[in-house]
Amino acid sequence: MKLRVLTILIATAIAGSAAAAPLKPEEQIKFRKAGYSVMAWNMGKIKASIDGSWNKDEVQKAAATVAAIANSGLGGLFGAGTEKEVGEQRTRVKAEFFQEQDKVKELALAFNKEANELARVAAAGDSAAIKAQFGKTGEACKACHDKFRKD
Amino acid sequence: MKLRVLTILIATAIAGSAAAAPLKPEEQIKFRKAGYSVMAWNMGKIKASIDGSWNKDEVQKAAATVAAIANSGLGGLFGAGTEKEVGEQRTRVKAEFFQEQDKVKELALAFNKEANELARVAAAGDSAAIKAQFGKTGEACKACHDKFRKD
Repeated sequence: MKLRVLTILIATAIAGSAAAAPLKPEEQIKFRKAGYSVMAWNMGKIKASIDGSWNKDEVQKAAATVAAIANSGLGGLFGAGTEKEVGEQRTRVKAEFFQEQDKVKELALAFNKEANELARVAAAGDSAAIKAQFGKTGEACKACHDKFRKD
Repeated sequence: MKLRVLTILIATAIAGSAAAAPLKPEEQIKFRKAGYSVMAWNMGKIKASIDGSWNKDEVQKAAATVAAIANSGLGGLFGAGTEKEVGEQRTRVKAEFFQEQDKVKELALAFNKEANELARVAAAGDSAAIKAQFGKTGEACKACHDKFRKD
């Protein structure tokens, strides 16, 4: 599927033809899971810096990545047909996610706020402030997982 | 695995204890594939804007995400033991990737340059310049896929 997407992308980028098709449910699940994985990887790098030897450049790049993904519209990847396993793509999203959209929005906006603040604080470079904001960001992740993700 | 990573992250973020363990080969493959998937998703959004109705905000956010991931150290996720399928994680990387590190570096730096230029051009907002730079970025993706990725 990745190959298909990229082949279409590159072929059309070069040839300048054909509008992109809407994403299938399986692709939506794949991409949203990838987004959360990349954020988890980058949160892990920040954590490693906090617990081990401080790497300011890595922390800044990781925080920028988390914020960029948070801002990139993951919510659009929870379309119809993505509430359950599709093809090879499993999902741990709870049914409540699709029924409690006000709560979803509240938690998503809270997370985005903290992630963007983490990127801002990381760019400023104060390690104590980064550590504190990392904790807040992690709690915002967890709030949504606790509410809308199966174990 | 995602649950494990996040649970450790959040628990330690709150408790402030225990250094992060190095990533296992399976986790490295998972995270690098996720990184490429998120970039592909965002390249697809830019393509959709180029081919369909122009959404400047979406293009800027997508380009920022591609650049952030390009800058975030994916090269560190090709460690020992990641050259072949591990556990649930399949990989299409060719053996040559691990043998031709100068070429890998050349292609990776070329891609990073184009991705960062795409983010810069997107932030400036000129759609013709964005379209041209999107093409260059896609070609830089493809150059590495052609050389180091199995079909």
